[in-house]
Amino acid sequence: MPETIFGRIIAGSIPCHKVYEDAQVLAILDIAPLSRGHTLVLPKEPAATLDQLSDESAAALGKVLPRICRAVIAVTGVSQYNVLENNGSQAHQAVPHVHFHIIPKPEGGAGLGIGWPAGALDADAASLAAALARHLKAADR
Amino acid sequence: MPETIFGRIIAGSIPCHKVYEDAQVLAILDIAPLSRGHTLVLPKEPAATLDQLSDESAAALGKVLPRICRAVIAVTGVSQYNVLENNGSQAHQAVPHVHFHIIPKPEGGAGLGIGWPAGALDADAASLAAALARHLKAADR
Repeated sequence: MPETIFGRIIAGSIPCHKVYEDAQVLAILDIAPLSRGHTLVLPKEPAATLDQLSDESAAALGKVLPRICRAVIAVTGVSQYNVLENNGSQAHQAVPHVHFHIIPKPEGGAGLGIGWPAGALDADAASLAAALARHLKAADR
Repeated sequence: MPETIFGRIIAGSIPCHKVYEDAQVLAILDIAPLSRGHTLVLPKEPAATLDQLSDESAAALGKVLPRICRAVIAVTGVSQYNVLENNGSQAHQAVPHVHFHIIPKPEGGAGLGIGWPAGALDADAASLAAALARHLKAADR
């Protein structure tokens, strides 16, 4: 995996505005925020995308997300927010190291813009769900 | 907390296309998908927003996210995707029960639309990070 700016921040060779750190997770302010308080939560494990992250790192990151969200709400005074994690350049991922954005959604338009071109489940839905479930069961073994 | 459609699905009183289930987490197909394979990952704990979710449920949900992402990639053949969790109606949350969307981003425009009105950190950044860090330390006690 190539060295990324987040890897260098985790290693301490690039400064950051640190919000939280434990053995497996680092949270920092995004330097190009979509709104005030926009925070990034990173696993220290260097996985490019979420599907490549270990169970242990993913659990450690998941565990601290609610408390970091509470801090962002308390400090910004904005109670609505989006949590977004992008995988792949087409999906708007800019740095190939997993990072969860916590993006406050204040009134007035700042924050994440969301386009939601919803469709409908087609006739394939039952077989699609079954295929996903089979894949997950096979991975458990 | 009011009963929601997700609470009723978790209770088994409304059918769903189930993808995964364990003691704390349920994953199902979204009935109004943004792209084929759009999956919802729900904690069984009835928290309206992520900041209200317990550490235990959040860790359990975080732990299974990577493996559900791998299943979605394997079954859809689409390797790029967004993981999104919305909190509050202004932030595009439609059902007040925490749910993480896994939304494949195939070539050609389906999937999540993202608007990214990035700004810059202002002079307040150091004090903002310090306030967040203080809040998190106080919450640890």
